[in-house]
Amino acid sequence: MKGNIVVGQSGGPTAVINSSVAGVYVAAKQLGVDKVYGMVHGIEGFLKDKLTDLDDYLSDDMGVELLKRTPSAFLGSCRFKMPKIEGHEDVYEKVFEIMEKHDIQYLFYAGGNDSMDTVKMLSDYAAAHGKSQKFMGVPKTIDNDLPITDHCPGYGSSAKYIATSLKEIIRDNASFGAEKPTICIVEIMGRNAGWLTAAAALAKGPDCEGVDAIYLPERTFDMDGFMKKVKTLSETRTSVVIAVSEGVKLADGRYVCELEADSVPVDAFGHKQMGGTATTLAHKIAAEYGLKTRAVELSTLQRAGTHIASLTDINEAFQVGHDAVVAADQGKTGEMIILKRDCDSPYECGTSSYDIHQIANVERAVPDEYIGADGCSITAEYIKYARPLIIGELTPVFVNGLPRHILCREVIEYEK
Amino acid sequence: MKGNIVVGQSGGPTAVINSSVAGVYVAAKQLGVDKVYGMVHGIEGFLKDKLTDLDDYLSDDMGVELLKRTPSAFLGSCRFKMPKIEGHEDVYEKVFEIMEKHDIQYLFYAGGNDSMDTVKMLSDYAAAHGKSQKFMGVPKTIDNDLPITDHCPGYGSSAKYIATSLKEIIRDNASFGAEKPTICIVEIMGRNAGWLTAAAALAKGPDCEGVDAIYLPERTFDMDGFMKKVKTLSETRTSVVIAVSEGVKLADGRYVCELEADSVPVDAFGHKQMGGTATTLAHKIAAEYGLKTRAVELSTLQRAGTHIASLTDINEAFQVGHDAVVAADQGKTGEMIILKRDCDSPYECGTSSYDIHQIANVERAVPDEYIGADGCSITAEYIKYARPLIIGELTPVFVNGLPRHILCREVIEYEK
Repeated sequence: MKGNIVVGQSGGPTAVINSSVAGVYVAAKQLGVDKVYGMVHGIEGFLKDKLTDLDDYLSDDMGVELLKRTPSAFLGSCRFKMPKIEGHEDVYEKVFEIMEKHDIQYLFYAGGNDSMDTVKMLSDYAAAHGKSQKFMGVPKTIDNDLPITDHCPGYGSSAKYIATSLKEIIRDNASFGAEKPTICIVEIMGRNAGWLTAAAALAKGPDCEGVDAIYLPERTFDMDGFMKKVKTLSETRTSVVIAVSEGVKLADGRYVCELEADSVPVDAFGHKQMGGTATTLAHKIAAEYGLKTRAVELSTLQRAGTHIASLTDINEAFQVGHDAVVAADQGKTGEMIILKRDCDSPYECGTSSYDIHQIANVERAVPDEYIGADGCSITAEYIKYARPLIIGELTPVFVNGLPRHILCREVIEYEK
Repeated sequence: MKGNIVVGQSGGPTAVINSSVAGVYVAAKQLGVDKVYGMVHGIEGFLKDKLTDLDDYLSDDMGVELLKRTPSAFLGSCRFKMPKIEGHEDVYEKVFEIMEKHDIQYLFYAGGNDSMDTVKMLSDYAAAHGKSQKFMGVPKTIDNDLPITDHCPGYGSSAKYIATSLKEIIRDNASFGAEKPTICIVEIMGRNAGWLTAAAALAKGPDCEGVDAIYLPERTFDMDGFMKKVKTLSETRTSVVIAVSEGVKLADGRYVCELEADSVPVDAFGHKQMGGTATTLAHKIAAEYGLKTRAVELSTLQRAGTHIASLTDINEAFQVGHDAVVAADQGKTGEMIILKRDCDSPYECGTSSYDIHQIANVERAVPDEYIGADGCSITAEYIKYARPLIIGELTPVFVNGLPRHILCREVIEYEK
C-alpha cells in the first residue's frame, strides 16, 4: 500500500465504532503503511486539517485492546454533510489539498447513511476530476438501517444492551406485582426504523417473561388499540412491560411524543424538543385507568454501553474496518464493506464490498416477516436473525472498579 | 438453631438484595435449619400465607450463584407498612399464627427504612406479648440512607452502575463537541438524600474528564447559579455533562421537576407524576441559551443493573444476610446487621448488630464534608469513602448472549 491513510468517524456513535478504527489501523500497518491518521471530529475537523497520528495511541497492542473497549467515537464525530459539488468545488478541493499535504492516498469513513453519502460524493468527485485517491465506507449504525449489508456493526451491541436492560427492568417491575401491576413503558431509539425496538423481543427466555408488547414505527400507532391492550394486560398480569420506539406515529402523522408537546418549551430556534414517547403514554394510562406507571428511556446508553458490548459485534466492526483497507489496497474505491451471512446456525458471516451509490441515503426498515400480525409483536424469524449478533462478551479492563477507556488528546483539547 | 426460618424482601429492589437471601439461606442450612421459607411479596404476601420453600431453588449451589446474579427481589417485594399496634392486634396475631403454623422461629427482613420499621414493630409486639420468635433486619437500599451502618448493601452496585454509565455518557457527549457543546443533564435517583448522585463523581479519572457539576438535594437548588454555571461551561468546554438528583428543590420548596408540572397530567387520584428534573432543566437551557441539550434519566436501571454489580457489594449483601442468621441463633432480636469499616486502604469491613429502634425511620443525608463549598461538587473525602464499595465484579452467566437469572415460580404465578 503506498502513501498514508486517514480514517474518520461520523454520525451517532456506537459501542463498537472504535473497533472499526482499530481494524483499519491494524490492517494498514500489516500492509506497511507509514502513517495512519485519524480525522479529529470527522470530515468537519479534517477540513480544518485536524489530524491525529494513531501510532501515538495504538502502536502498543494494549492501546488496540482499550480502543475496542472504549465507547463512542474515539476520534470525535460530526454531523457534517458534504455540500453538492456544483458551486462548492472549493470544499472538495480543500479535502484533496489536505490529503496531498499529508500524502494521504486512502480515506476510510465509518458511519451510517449520511456518512456514506460523504464517501459517495468524494469518490464521485475524484472520478470526475481524475484524482487517484481512494475512498471506502465502513458501515456503522445502531439503527441497522443500511441496505444491502446483512446487518450493521453497532446494532448487535445495542441489541444486547437493550435485551439485557429489559431483562433487568422486567425483574424490577415484577417485584411489585402483588396487588396491582405497574405498567412500565420503555422507550427505545429509532425514529424511522424499529430495529432497536425489535431487540426487546430477545429478552424473553426460560428465565424471563419477556415484554408484553412491542410497538415499532413501521406500523401506525393505534392509540385506542394500545389502551385496550394495556387494560387487558393490567387485568391478567402481575407486571406489564411494553417496549415502544421513540418514532411511533399516529394515523394523522403526529409522533406520539408530540401529544404533550404543546406543554413543552421550544428552543431558541423554535424547535419542539422531541422525546418523551414513554412518558406521554405513561401519563395517559395513569390518567385514564388510575394505574401505577413508570416510563423508562434507554437514551444515550443504548449506543454507548460498551461495557456489555457483543463480542460478535466487536469482531465484525474490527473486520469491516480491516477489510476496507484490504479492498482499497486491491484498488476498490467508492464502495462500502458489507456483511454477508452464510449461515444462521452455526452463525457464519463474511464480508464483501459494494457500490456506495446503492447504499448512501437509503434506509432499510424492519421487514414485514419480522413483525407479528397483531402489529405489536416480533416473530421467531427476527429472533433467528438477531440472536447470533448479541453473542459473546469482551470483558472490560476494570481499573478502580470502572471500565478503563482510552482518550484521544486532540479531541479533548480541540480548539474551535 | 431450632425450628424453621423465613426471609422476606421489602421496598425498592437493588442489584444485590438477592445475595442477602442467599446469605440467609446458606447460613441457616449450615446451622441445620430444616425449612428456609421465603415470603412471596414480603410481609404483604406472608399475611396471606404465601410462602416458598427455598430448597426448591437453592439446594444446588448453582441456584445460589444464579441468585447472586439476579436483579431485583427474587421473592417479590412490597410497600406494605405494619399498622400501629393498638387497634390492629389482629394483623400482628396473624403474623404469629402463620409463623406458628410453619414452625417458624426466626424472621429475617431485608429492606430500607420502612422495612426496618416492620422488624421493629414485630419484635416490639413479640416482647410485649411474651412471644419467643426472633426478628432481625438485613440492611438494603440503593439510597444508602440508613443510619449507624457505614453504608448499605445495594449502594455500591448502584454507584458502580452510575459511574460506569456516566463514563459512557461523557464519551458519547464528547464526540460531538467540535463546534458547539451539547449540554447533557443526567438525572439520578434519590429524593431526599444525594448519595446516588454523589457517585457521579467516581467517573472522573485519567481516562475520563468527569462530570462538570453535581447537584444534590442536600443543597437548595439555585436556578440562577445553575444557569450561569451552564453558560460559563458552554463557553469554555467542548462537552458539558451535569449530574442532578431527582430530588433537587428550589428555595421556595418546589421540586425542580414541578416547574413544568402544570402541563403534566395527573393520575386518577389527582397526584402529579414526578420525575423529569433533567428534562425540565434541559428545556430551560435550550429555551434561554439556544444550546443543544440532552436529558438522560438513569431510572430503574440504576437499581437493577446486576450485570455490572460490585463484587464487594454482592459479598457484603451476602454477609449481612448470613450474619443476621448467626446473630439470631445467638439470641439477638429486634436488631439490624450493620457494616463497620475498619480501614479504607486496604478496605476492610466487618459486621455487627444494632438496636433497630435507632435505625428504623431515620434517614442519613450526605454529610457536609462530602459536598464541595460551591455546593455543586463532591470532595475527595467522598471518593475515599465510596471507591472501595464499587470494586470487583461477578461475571454474569451469559446464556444465548444475555445474563441468566433465576425466577421464583410463586412470584410469577402469584394469585391475588
